[in-house]
Amino acid sequence: MTERFTRELSALLAKNETYDVTFKSQDALTESDFESTEVLIAIPSPEILGKFKQLRWLQLFSAGTNGYTQGANFPEHVVLTNASGTYGLTISEHMLAMTLSMMRKFPVYMDQQKQEIWKNAGELQSIAGATVLVHGLGDIGGHFAQKVKALGAHVIAVKRVVYGDEAYADEVYDENELEHVLPRADVIASSVPGTKETYHLFDATKFSLMKSSAIFINVGRGENVDLEALCDALNTQKLAGAGLDVTDPEPLPKGHRAWHTKNLLLTPHASGGFTLAETRRRFLAILQDNLTRFETGRPLNNVVDMKTGYKKK
Amino acid sequence: MTERFTRELSALLAKNETYDVTFKSQDALTESDFESTEVLIAIPSPEILGKFKQLRWLQLFSAGTNGYTQGANFPEHVVLTNASGTYGLTISEHMLAMTLSMMRKFPVYMDQQKQEIWKNAGELQSIAGATVLVHGLGDIGGHFAQKVKALGAHVIAVKRVVYGDEAYADEVYDENELEHVLPRADVIASSVPGTKETYHLFDATKFSLMKSSAIFINVGRGENVDLEALCDALNTQKLAGAGLDVTDPEPLPKGHRAWHTKNLLLTPHASGGFTLAETRRRFLAILQDNLTRFETGRPLNNVVDMKTGYKKK
Repeated sequence: MTERFTRELSALLAKNETYDVTFKSQDALTESDFESTEVLIAIPSPEILGKFKQLRWLQLFSAGTNGYTQGANFPEHVVLTNASGTYGLTISEHMLAMTLSMMRKFPVYMDQQKQEIWKNAGELQSIAGATVLVHGLGDIGGHFAQKVKALGAHVIAVKRVVYGDEAYADEVYDENELEHVLPRADVIASSVPGTKETYHLFDATKFSLMKSSAIFINVGRGENVDLEALCDALNTQKLAGAGLDVTDPEPLPKGHRAWHTKNLLLTPHASGGFTLAETRRRFLAILQDNLTRFETGRPLNNVVDMKTGYKKK
Repeated sequence: MTERFTRELSALLAKNETYDVTFKSQDALTESDFESTEVLIAIPSPEILGKFKQLRWLQLFSAGTNGYTQGANFPEHVVLTNASGTYGLTISEHMLAMTLSMMRKFPVYMDQQKQEIWKNAGELQSIAGATVLVHGLGDIGGHFAQKVKALGAHVIAVKRVVYGDEAYADEVYDENELEHVLPRADVIASSVPGTKETYHLFDATKFSLMKSSAIFINVGRGENVDLEALCDALNTQKLAGAGLDVTDPEPLPKGHRAWHTKNLLLTPHASGGFTLAETRRRFLAILQDNLTRFETGRPLNNVVDMKTGYKKK
């Protein structure tokens, strides 16, 4: 958490006089906290959740729920809500920045700048007229689709469930069609959560189906990508470039070859977080609304479906 | 010129059977070329133009006309046309890539990647809700305004002549108002040509009027910016970041401090050029149309006003 966010969160909680609020890191929790806490606003280690005797509600800071759902032994009497709706703007801007940076060969130009080399790096790509495969069309993927559509891209959305009312997508397919549409995409941008179904979804086979000129972006969960296969695809020029904000393992350890793989742009799980004023505003609005709902006994927003790991529709 | 562009240009010229076409570098020109050439498609050194005895038309590859206009002794009987309309897409995408890269601190993250450091770089900026000052609203500035507007920015346009029908701008001012609106901008993106009026337009005074959180982008001409003043502003954190595709001097010489000035992203006059398929298509369409007009004695498009250096309205 950033200092600014802690300050803004404190200010919000201080206004809610019915609560007895404590700020603590997980390591500092005492027996008395485990005895009395009714509401947690956190991303706690899943294994400590069973220790809370009175816990009724866990509001996650994250949109992702892996570790808490899909048979993770989450306490049955606790309501889990996520932060879906918080990160769409900031993460989609990060995705767009990654996409355009790779299209304009900025990693090459930044390298040259360090070496004081003034030299044209040749052929570039344009987002206008590009076919962009948006993998996952939730808050994040939806925002990204809207942006690239506005910049002139043809948008193919691939998502878990097709409802037929998807905005900003020129074509919509369900997950089963992913392999069929991969060969058409100039950009493949994935923002799906980490679930059993998405583990190593992007593997050597998937990369081999992509255009050699394609750019691959992942901001979902690192585990969704076989990182070794991605490095191989980039090193053998079977893929033109990639931008990853998440890795497996994460943090990426010193000495891992991904750090220095050519045409791979890495950011340290920094696309989300509370580093944008608007992100903080969005999270605090969700939290404030849920606090009021909790207080008045109304159903909470952003309740997570324990089977799918997604926010309930 | 890229190899692809040379190939596409040759193919177009080969189709026009009325012309006797020669491809040459300037160094290879002979007396016979100076005697007989009627049409030049080039960016020639201005001083050799007087040598062409029969020259009637010079079609520039560039949109910029500095060196040929504003009292540059350009031969009176020669029509000068520029490539305005060619570079709007590619340069505006470059500007957007620069803006978003600086907002997302990509230069910091790319540095960290080289050093195998996984660390959040803190507070970011968003284009949504940002106030973007678009300086120059021609083909390039207009495309850029449209893009940032679509991404949620508030657009202030500052331009030479205000016609009142400017699209994609929330507010429009003429050049005299530049200093008054600079303090409001989160992003200042300049794409004006190099003229007497724009020489060192962005100097220490202008930078001191900008927000310390502002990002400055220049894709016009290097001479429009006092580079030393810009480096000073960045080094003293009076300005958060800058992206330059043009410099003064250009190419930027080895050893110049700008190469290593913090939060300064440099690309080597690579935002335009013929490195995008769509750019080549646009230029060749202008050229084909002008060749037909020339052949049939109709007025050419993109004729440059010798006084202003801009394409005639």
